Amino acid sequence: MQQITSNSFNNAVEKLSSLPGIGNKTALRLVLQLLNKNKDDLHSFGKAFIDLSEQIEYCNNCYNISDTDTCSICANPKRSDEIICVVENILDVIAIENTHQFNGKYHVLGGIISPMEGIGPSDINIKELIERIEQQQPSELIMALSTTMEGDATNFYIYKKLIHTDINITTIARGIGIGDEIEYTDELTLGRSIVNRVPFKNTLSLK
Amino acid sequence: MQQITSNSFNNAVEKLSSLPGIGNKTALRLVLQLLNKNKDDLHSFGKAFIDLSEQIEYCNNCYNISDTDTCSICANPKRSDEIICVVENILDVIAIENTHQFNGKYHVLGGIISPMEGIGPSDINIKELIERIEQQQPSELIMALSTTMEGDATNFYIYKKLIHTDINITTIARGIGIGDEIEYTDELTLGRSIVNRVPFKNTLSLK
Repeated sequence: MQQITSNSFNNAVEKLSSLPGIGNKTALRLVLQLLNKNKDDLHSFGKAFIDLSEQIEYCNNCYNISDTDTCSICANPKRSDEIICVVENILDVIAIENTHQFNGKYHVLGGIISPMEGIGPSDINIKELIERIEQQQPSELIMALSTTMEGDATNFYIYKKLIHTDINITTIARGIGIGDEIEYTDELTLGRSIVNRVPFKNTLSLK
Repeated sequence: MQQITSNSFNNAVEKLSSLPGIGNKTALRLVLQLLNKNKDDLHSFGKAFIDLSEQIEYCNNCYNISDTDTCSICANPKRSDEIICVVENILDVIAIENTHQFNGKYHVLGGIISPMEGIGPSDINIKELIERIEQQQPSELIMALSTTMEGDATNFYIYKKLIHTDINITTIARGIGIGDEIEYTDELTLGRSIVNRVPFKNTLSLK
């Protein structure tokens, strides 16, 4: 291919195909689509990523992506400082915000402990979480990590680090998804949903 | 979402999700992946597209994407000037080059006639093709466009424009794909492959 097209074209294709889930053919097609736009659009496409690389900041408090030192969630006086929800990344923040069921603050770990990928406790914002809890003394910490081996390991690591404090550590409920049928639910999930059953009247208060 | 993350982040997500086949969720995930790289990588990702917008050139002869006025295929003295293969875009050039069965030159139309999308004959490089043929007097023109309504219309338009010349206009063979089973082939394709049958010995010369 090197000899068929131009270097700048090949370079753009290579950059796009370095993204997960985008193969060489898809990247080729996407770059062609970009070329079909006018030059200014293509320029501003590239500029968006240069701006991102230069302007990106992380909130000093929760490590969410932010334009300012303190993100809009941490700066919001209407949100409670009493509850901190621990999540892996910004996608989880967006997912939880979309439920409109949480009014506390977040703490974005920026990853989870994964020995397989060489990510240890010091590579993610756990130390910062511990310091934050000691400083701000919230009453509750909600662990909202994936129920994978790595998520469970991270949960347990943080739990051990905080066992001496009197913070109330909870985890988001695992159970049958709303709309799911019992007969198709896996045994682990169904078992957990029976063990962790909740008073029926609690479910009535939900919107 | 506007209030959750930063403007530069949202802007990058928006640019990526403007590409066909990339939705908002995928774009979010891809931008997060880019942020996980170091700043220089992210910067060079953006720069690739700015470079593309500034450096992209099209070959004066065949309208292929090129770094120079004449693309490497047109500049190659080992390739025949006698046969010109007409294709829709650079993806088709790459696909045909990969077969190693064609040693002529190309002419990239940059699209096909599509009234539905408002693309007329003057929006693609047809005038340039006619001029090129008058000037260079090749002996054969291979039409290699998709067998869609639009492809057929473009084929016919070009055929009509050249009917007064003595150039030999051919089209790539339509028929049953190699490895395909006859019983699953659609009637149109099977019918065409019977009408346009070829001497058996011709198939023996292929690598």
